[in-house]
Amino acid sequence: MSITDTVLARIDATFEAAQQRWIDWLRIPSISAQPAHAADCRAAAAYACAELASLGFDATVRETSGHPVVVAHHPGPVGAAGKVPHLLYYGHYDVQPADPIELWHSPPFEPTVVDGPHGKRVYARGAVDDKGQVQMWLSAFRAWHEETGGMPCRISVLIEGEEEVGSTGFKPFVEANREEFNKADIIVVSDTGMWDIDTPALSTSLRGMVYMDVVLKAASRDLHSGMYGGSALNPINALATALGQLKNAEGRVMVPGYYDGVRDISTRQSNQWAALGFSEDKYLGDIGLSEPYGEKGRGALERLWARPTCDICGIWGGYSGPGTKTVIAAEAGAKVSFRLVPGQEPGKVVNGFKAFMQARVPKDAKLVFTVHGEAEGLEIPVDSPFVQAAAAVLEEEYGRPAVMIGCGGSIPIVETFQKALGLDSLLMGFGLDDDQVHSPNEKFEVRCFRQGLRSHARLLGRLGGA
Amino acid sequence: MSITDTVLARIDATFEAAQQRWIDWLRIPSISAQPAHAADCRAAAAYACAELASLGFDATVRETSGHPVVVAHHPGPVGAAGKVPHLLYYGHYDVQPADPIELWHSPPFEPTVVDGPHGKRVYARGAVDDKGQVQMWLSAFRAWHEETGGMPCRISVLIEGEEEVGSTGFKPFVEANREEFNKADIIVVSDTGMWDIDTPALSTSLRGMVYMDVVLKAASRDLHSGMYGGSALNPINALATALGQLKNAEGRVMVPGYYDGVRDISTRQSNQWAALGFSEDKYLGDIGLSEPYGEKGRGALERLWARPTCDICGIWGGYSGPGTKTVIAAEAGAKVSFRLVPGQEPGKVVNGFKAFMQARVPKDAKLVFTVHGEAEGLEIPVDSPFVQAAAAVLEEEYGRPAVMIGCGGSIPIVETFQKALGLDSLLMGFGLDDDQVHSPNEKFEVRCFRQGLRSHARLLGRLGGA
Repeated sequence: MSITDTVLARIDATFEAAQQRWIDWLRIPSISAQPAHAADCRAAAAYACAELASLGFDATVRETSGHPVVVAHHPGPVGAAGKVPHLLYYGHYDVQPADPIELWHSPPFEPTVVDGPHGKRVYARGAVDDKGQVQMWLSAFRAWHEETGGMPCRISVLIEGEEEVGSTGFKPFVEANREEFNKADIIVVSDTGMWDIDTPALSTSLRGMVYMDVVLKAASRDLHSGMYGGSALNPINALATALGQLKNAEGRVMVPGYYDGVRDISTRQSNQWAALGFSEDKYLGDIGLSEPYGEKGRGALERLWARPTCDICGIWGGYSGPGTKTVIAAEAGAKVSFRLVPGQEPGKVVNGFKAFMQARVPKDAKLVFTVHGEAEGLEIPVDSPFVQAAAAVLEEEYGRPAVMIGCGGSIPIVETFQKALGLDSLLMGFGLDDDQVHSPNEKFEVRCFRQGLRSHARLLGRLGGA
Repeated sequence: MSITDTVLARIDATFEAAQQRWIDWLRIPSISAQPAHAADCRAAAAYACAELASLGFDATVRETSGHPVVVAHHPGPVGAAGKVPHLLYYGHYDVQPADPIELWHSPPFEPTVVDGPHGKRVYARGAVDDKGQVQMWLSAFRAWHEETGGMPCRISVLIEGEEEVGSTGFKPFVEANREEFNKADIIVVSDTGMWDIDTPALSTSLRGMVYMDVVLKAASRDLHSGMYGGSALNPINALATALGQLKNAEGRVMVPGYYDGVRDISTRQSNQWAALGFSEDKYLGDIGLSEPYGEKGRGALERLWARPTCDICGIWGGYSGPGTKTVIAAEAGAKVSFRLVPGQEPGKVVNGFKAFMQARVPKDAKLVFTVHGEAEGLEIPVDSPFVQAAAAVLEEEYGRPAVMIGCGGSIPIVETFQKALGLDSLLMGFGLDDDQVHSPNEKFEVRCFRQGLRSHARLLGRLGGA
């Protein structure tokens, strides 16, 4: 029996406790977007820090200009410096807001274990994104620590609290502490998904993102629509008119220069993805839709993984309560996200969107833009030893090869790590498409959690030669 | 000294008390649109009922399917039945919601008396619309009652609590009690405005209204924009695309058949309105705008009084809190108001809007419409003896002739009265354009209140031959 095997046995024997640590962490409503939850963010950081400290890590909660970050270091096997790789684990303890709260079947911060088609699952905000995924590697560390008294690799840890709000304090923190982290060999990130519950996946491309608020200001005050309708600029009409032109009938984003630098996928890539047998009918049918709403003439996986898009994530203005209010609002606003692919420049998209809006609103409309985040799309080299090692342990755990997929979502910090630290990332995640990430009733399958935990433990063993 | 003169003298001598009754009524937050304020609506009705009962009226609060209605009758001078006119006063005790509450300089339901350019003014939600205007005629009744022990005319009263929400319970109430009210000769309505603070006005045309909610439903749940962006129907994008086409570049409303039945104004009307010397630059400049946002090639007063229009009064969908949430919402909605002019059929506009939307959304979009109100535009005959009497008393009070104007707003109940009771309305109101009706910081000038009260007392005297 190898050391790794004894560690895996210990994981199985102590699995209840790992699940409990995950659930306890989920009880903390660490919503980074809402200032009222700042203390909860700090509590969630303290929770992870205490776990790491108990595992022989030099662990601290460090301040940033935003929510704090958990930093930890472990020297690895004694005398092994330079002989085992140095892994930098990254994750985030912050979660998305829970609204619309009324659509949750159980309270978002009271984790609820329910039977599902794949066995038990846990419902809670953050169940998978990202507390569940982080707790997998924390518990893998614990199993190695308890079984061997140490770690098979040298390890550093960064768990931030601003992933859901653009990492505005975390990014400068990483840059300011570059020397502390750039000695690692690879970043290990668990914030992505599997192909399906039986098929592990490694993500080798990530979309980037530009996320902006636009507020259109018109009259100096709210107006009575009877007294001013037909004369006064209505900011909701004007905003709808401009935003309504963001996509043309072919589904192309009409922001000037938007597709500059976007490359078509290779035939090899196209064939690989086609071989996955993805059913767009099922993918859409599962959410009650029947036809794609995107660029015409592109495959579903291509649109999701290799094409940029644009979604209005929120819109507001005027009266939205019950009944009627005959008002012309003074202003209206929207939140617009652009998913970017490699080749697009975020700064150009920001300026292009500003120009797009400015060209489509009346003279009296004052536009106010806020940029919440800018990240380039990213490709991960598939032939690195770390990707190869991860593929090997996933095949051991699942009994079938891992597939190399794209990821429609953004992990903007991966770009920061590449730029600030010169390090690539290994994206090994265990979420499923129906985990309702960012939606009401977010969940994570206990089976995914367990096999993810075991896969992380295996990876440490393989890379450490144990 | 005529009896009317002694009544006017009493009004001046007891003016403080009238102002106090107005202010006390304003303290009751009778917001009809918000179910939480149902008890306040009932309290506001009880307040008016008690006033009328104390003036010799047979006054009751009667139930409807919505908020209750105050009904009162006074027989007028003894033995004068048939010799004096029977006037039916209509008003409403309900008010608009106060939001956005943070823009109020003083609490909306704590009436605040402040010095302004025209003397004192009272700030409160409902200051003018319509509690202030109703309290003018209630106080005119009181002066006649206290001075003469009775009323110079036969009087009926209807004060409803659903004017701001489409009068859904009040309209069937009027129809069901037609026999109780259709013996009157005219409806007196004080819910309109003056030309300016020195120039009284009678409104002889009113725009109608259709007010609808439209909700666009897409996926069965909120989605992560990274996992579904580019494939899943985004209801906010789709709603903006459809609503953004409501007006073309010429400011014309693009709902099919929208202008059917709309007549151009006569040269006489056009000349009359031109003679008013209305400055659109000032009208727009006062609210921080510089150019009209409406039908090209039409005058400002024509657009306001004689042309239909369309304003989106509210829009919502997705995440509108601080920071970012990368979500594709399951649904998005808007509130859309159409101001109608005589000749347009509300039912056709409702169906036209439905067809307009249906033709502009993707196949998977489910549209849900709610119609909150339908009212035709209306013209009032200017040669009726009641309009002539009102013009005469206004000239007495103000020392200059009243102008006959249109009204951009809607008083849908006037149409109901014409249809259900066969009665015309006399629209004699005392609001000013800058009263911020339906906006934060609604106010009413004490001078307008006082001269309006005196004008109402004069009208009773003239019509009663006193």
